[in-house]
Amino acid sequence: MSAGWFRRRFLPGEPLPAPRPPGPRASPVPYQRPRFLRGSCSSPGAAEASRRPDSRPVRSPARGRALPWNAGYAEIINAEKSEFNEDQAACGKLCIRRCEFGAEEEWLTLCPEEFLTGHYWALFDGHGGPAAAILAANTLHSCLRRQLEAVVEGLVATRPPMHLSGRCICPSDPQFVEEKGIKAEDLVIGALESAFQECDEVIGRELEASGQVGGCTALVAVSLQGKLYVANAGDSRAILVRRDEIRPLSSEFTPETERQRIQQLAFVYPELLAGEFTRLEFPRRLKGDDLGQKVLFRDHHMRGWSYKRVDKSDLKYPLIHGQGRQARLLGTLAVSRGLGDHQLRVLDTNIQLKPFLLSVPQVTVLDVDQLELQEDDVVVMATDGLWDVLSNEQVAWLVRSFLPGNQEDPHSLSAGWSSQVLEAGPDADTQHTGEGRRSHRGRAGVLR
Amino acid sequence: MSAGWFRRRFLPGEPLPAPRPPGPRASPVPYQRPRFLRGSCSSPGAAEASRRPDSRPVRSPARGRALPWNAGYAEIINAEKSEFNEDQAACGKLCIRRCEFGAEEEWLTLCPEEFLTGHYWALFDGHGGPAAAILAANTLHSCLRRQLEAVVEGLVATRPPMHLSGRCICPSDPQFVEEKGIKAEDLVIGALESAFQECDEVIGRELEASGQVGGCTALVAVSLQGKLYVANAGDSRAILVRRDEIRPLSSEFTPETERQRIQQLAFVYPELLAGEFTRLEFPRRLKGDDLGQKVLFRDHHMRGWSYKRVDKSDLKYPLIHGQGRQARLLGTLAVSRGLGDHQLRVLDTNIQLKPFLLSVPQVTVLDVDQLELQEDDVVVMATDGLWDVLSNEQVAWLVRSFLPGNQEDPHSLSAGWSSQVLEAGPDADTQHTGEGRRSHRGRAGVLR
Repeated sequence: MSAGWFRRRFLPGEPLPAPRPPGPRASPVPYQRPRFLRGSCSSPGAAEASRRPDSRPVRSPARGRALPWNAGYAEIINAEKSEFNEDQAACGKLCIRRCEFGAEEEWLTLCPEEFLTGHYWALFDGHGGPAAAILAANTLHSCLRRQLEAVVEGLVATRPPMHLSGRCICPSDPQFVEEKGIKAEDLVIGALESAFQECDEVIGRELEASGQVGGCTALVAVSLQGKLYVANAGDSRAILVRRDEIRPLSSEFTPETERQRIQQLAFVYPELLAGEFTRLEFPRRLKGDDLGQKVLFRDHHMRGWSYKRVDKSDLKYPLIHGQGRQARLLGTLAVSRGLGDHQLRVLDTNIQLKPFLLSVPQVTVLDVDQLELQEDDVVVMATDGLWDVLSNEQVAWLVRSFLPGNQEDPHSLSAGWSSQVLEAGPDADTQHTGEGRRSHRGRAGVLR
Repeated sequence: MSAGWFRRRFLPGEPLPAPRPPGPRASPVPYQRPRFLRGSCSSPGAAEASRRPDSRPVRSPARGRALPWNAGYAEIINAEKSEFNEDQAACGKLCIRRCEFGAEEEWLTLCPEEFLTGHYWALFDGHGGPAAAILAANTLHSCLRRQLEAVVEGLVATRPPMHLSGRCICPSDPQFVEEKGIKAEDLVIGALESAFQECDEVIGRELEASGQVGGCTALVAVSLQGKLYVANAGDSRAILVRRDEIRPLSSEFTPETERQRIQQLAFVYPELLAGEFTRLEFPRRLKGDDLGQKVLFRDHHMRGWSYKRVDKSDLKYPLIHGQGRQARLLGTLAVSRGLGDHQLRVLDTNIQLKPFLLSVPQVTVLDVDQLELQEDDVVVMATDGLWDVLSNEQVAWLVRSFLPGNQEDPHSLSAGWSSQVLEAGPDADTQHTGEGRRSHRGRAGVLR
């Protein structure tokens, strides 16, 4: 992506790119549930709860189907909100092949044998339709595999070489790499960052070709070479639950948490707001009676607050509006990072959301060996549907309560999760507002 | 500042602002040392050290002159590097007046009486001449006082009101403010942010008028209403030294720590590099032999590393180059935040550094009451000259070693500081490179 591309793509008045020749229209992305749910069941613990009138269908993997690391999985479809579950998930073994160098110092795929193996778990929280999440679940792991294969020589070196070929052009090259502190894990982080972007481009092309729309957040965990990488773009969350510790493995990216980045872009490119929005933040949307008053505000460069005298342009709809779960970007979207949404516009306008969205994840690295993880340490990954109704502490309590005595059963986490979340969900849910209740949905991958 | 202003100011091809009518040329900013050094002395402890051939002059306040909170101060002028000391300092009482509302709901300065008092300590590390640091030392506290006076009604309320006048236009206004979590300390943070920007504009105007150049970093501590605020723009550092704890109160802003922000701006506005620099980071500057090779790199969106095939444009000089103390922005500047530098250009080019520099500080807040600070807890503020040769732990050890038994003497910190830093400096200094030695200079304000 270049600045020129950004300007042509998003800014009015820039010369338009040459139109693509019309190709055959691709068929729509077919709706599906995660592959590992084939032959799935409602888990036994959930049976009683599911007879209650307010219960929602819960699915988890069939008893005989073990997920990597005996991970558990349960999903609750919110039938009130949409006909289809917009969320998706994927997991599996990650097989990275090594290709040997030929005499020309170019890749020769003479030896595409499995070389490094890891595991991959992913959750995609869809919005505006299920298509983006389905594409992400079908594609992101392949993008990641390709990105890792492209740097695999660096991954297995003691320290990544300056030149991927291993050739040392300048005698002090290894010293330069060491001074920058570049380690193999930085290549995995880079591969995750690139894979998310590549997948985002694939989704953009596929949805445009099939005439579909939508976007999704993405939360991915990858185990490789003794490390666990958690990459997050959106408002899902992963935590590590240990006997005496709850460790956050991700941060949420929402219009509120990324306010300064978003306001900064609107400052640099005011055209993106088309005169319809104000980039300033106020405690509430201003109205005529506020004109001429000095009110609390903050702009892109401010972490603190100040007062400004209200003029007419401050009465426009705010770029970021609402509080907590209700916070929206351009009145439309509750997340600020994710995949897809290439066609998303503010209702009844030509104002695009995509320029404000990042597909790049933030990546956290856990050194599994160094941490001396125990049998009952569990990583919990879930979309906002779960975290809106249960705190980290409540989830940790649930995990700790259904785990003991069930470690040997590969299905234990799915079963425990299904029944407990279903039980806890509606109760916890009532603590929220009416809107909160209606949009409740939960999805949880639990790794052990 | 608006985006239009930014584009007119920094981007080629944009319509130029109307030229200002030539005014009378202001006289140059007169050189001076901090006011509180009048009648200053070399402290007794430093006498022996100063007889050594490699010693440098040390100044600290005169014995009879107590600084707020009995703060100590010592400065070492690096005579090898420049004739004048480019660094500055300021401290004093901060008197914030309250102005009463009239019937028109406008400020009436009928009652400009002192209302809130606080204290202020500041260090300015100058470069390219002493003028910017002198102006900052003379100006920033006034900017801060003005900014605080403009919001004083909000400062003294239980919670800042939505409208500064206190008028409640919408019955749920207090609730909106509460939901955003806006507290009085956010107004002080906002005032510090605005004061730094205002001071930067003053410096820009004054230096342009007097035909001088230069810039400086700024590290400010303010005590107000039971809180200590530390605002930092640059690579100075403040720490709190307690009996059992060393707590960092600031982060350093350098081309390395702000790499992604700086690369992002170059991505958005490639014109700023005038085709002379590459925004990409490589472990070292590339050369002809690297052409066609795949080498380690990262771009603005990456925290990890990847490999790219080198093309000709990658051989340009890097936007950020060098490592650690040698890291430079556009080959010129070692800091990425500060005041001044409005005229600074890359040598023999028209490429400006100012668009890449931020004058906004990062602000840390300490709740002094809640922390239950003890008599021997000390805040140490110093420029990079000190931190380049002494670690946080070494400085804490020094403070803890010269403090006991001297608490009652207001001069104890200045004296202890002068002698100990002078003793420790040259030894520690020898751990650094030749360039490191030559540019060594230290400045330390110690609050107790």
